[in-house]
Amino acid sequence: MSEHQHDGHAGHGYIADKDAYVRRLKLIEGQARGLQRMVEDETYCIDILTQLSAMTRALEAVGLGLLNDHLNHCVVNAARESDEAAAAKIDEAMKAITRLVKS
Amino acid sequence: MSEHQHDGHAGHGYIADKDAYVRRLKLIEGQARGLQRMVEDETYCIDILTQLSAMTRALEAVGLGLLNDHLNHCVVNAARESDEAAAAKIDEAMKAITRLVKS
Amino acid sequence: MSEHQHDGHAGHGYIADKDAYVRRLKLIEGQARGLQRMVEDETYCIDILTQLSAMTRALEAVGLGLLNDHLNHCVVNAARESDEAAAAKIDEAMKAITRLVKS
Amino acid sequence: MSEHQHDGHAGHGYIADKDAYVRRLKLIEGQARGLQRMVEDETYCIDILTQLSAMTRALEAVGLGLLNDHLNHCVVNAARESDEAAAAKIDEAMKAITRLVKS
Repeated sequence: MSEHQHDGHAGHGYIADKDAYVRRLKLIEGQARGLQRMVEDETYCIDILTQLSAMTRALEAVGLGLLNDHLNHCVVNAARESDEAAAAKIDEAMKAITRLVKS
Repeated sequence: MSEHQHDGHAGHGYIADKDAYVRRLKLIEGQARGLQRMVEDETYCIDILTQLSAMTRALEAVGLGLLNDHLNHCVVNAARESDEAAAAKIDEAMKAITRLVKS
Repeated sequence: MSEHQHDGHAGHGYIADKDAYVRRLKLIEGQARGLQRMVEDETYCIDILTQLSAMTRALEAVGLGLLNDHLNHCVVNAARESDEAAAAKIDEAMKAITRLVKS
Repeated sequence: MSEHQHDGHAGHGYIADKDAYVRRLKLIEGQARGLQRMVEDETYCIDILTQLSAMTRALEAVGLGLLNDHLNHCVVNAARESDEAAAAKIDEAMKAITRLVKS
């Protein structure tokens, strides 16, 4: 167990999917290596862009999965604590959502 | 040199930046490994999402760079060939742009 | 008051900003009319696209504002009701967030 | 005819679809009015967000259509003029594409 873990996460369902997230990120890492080979081989630009969009979507899906876990654990727990705790967690989540929407 | 290379790319400026693109994609590959460690260490979700958005933006910047090269080489060459050649290349580029916009 | 209002919204803070949202949407409506004039006047494409992106961002900001209100009211209330209620509301919110991210 | 028209646009196909673009933008204007009513009626947030995403997608489709016209007319014409003219137009188009991707 890491010492970097955050209150509200430890022992929660977040851990349950850890291996699945790591597997999906390993696939994404593989996609990054595949793109390097495509550039080195001077694969046709449009084909590289198709792979790059697939990689972006895979990354986005991981982000949305993590956000879902965060809302179900941290935000729900904060809501049960107090209005202030909930507002703080939601404010933080909204900043992350805004970055996902803009990127 | 790959046998998959496409007419209109070989020997063009596209090659000039090849090393730069590979370097940027290696950094992105490193970001994918960093995200795996963050998940394994149960780093706070929001911090993982911040890194994930940075990685998405880096990937998007590579995509926009490749698209710029493509427009400057393939589309310009096609425009000088014929209206039909230009229309076909632009149609193909628009599909790639649409995927970038939607993902 | 509308008969279409939904449990969990009526009488909550959501109403407080109603006028502000309507004003922002009126500005967006004005931007849509401005774009029509630009097209009719054959304004330079790139200038139309600049206005169109500004309008998209304004619309996105309204969406993120509404989502923030929704998380602070409906999701917080559901979290205080039960795990099942929270999970249902978050699932619904995630679908809306996914649409915002993809569009 | 407008005095704001830009070299390279006048008399080209861009005009052909003008009415179609204006019609699509009128529908988008109507969607903006529909959203105002939904907010005034306190329609359930998620339903408003669904409509807002549909409006964003409609706006995005208009932007991609205009970009396609721009590439087929201005960029193709510039490519036939000179490398410098093409590079300038593509640089300008890339800035518009980047704004579409980010917004």
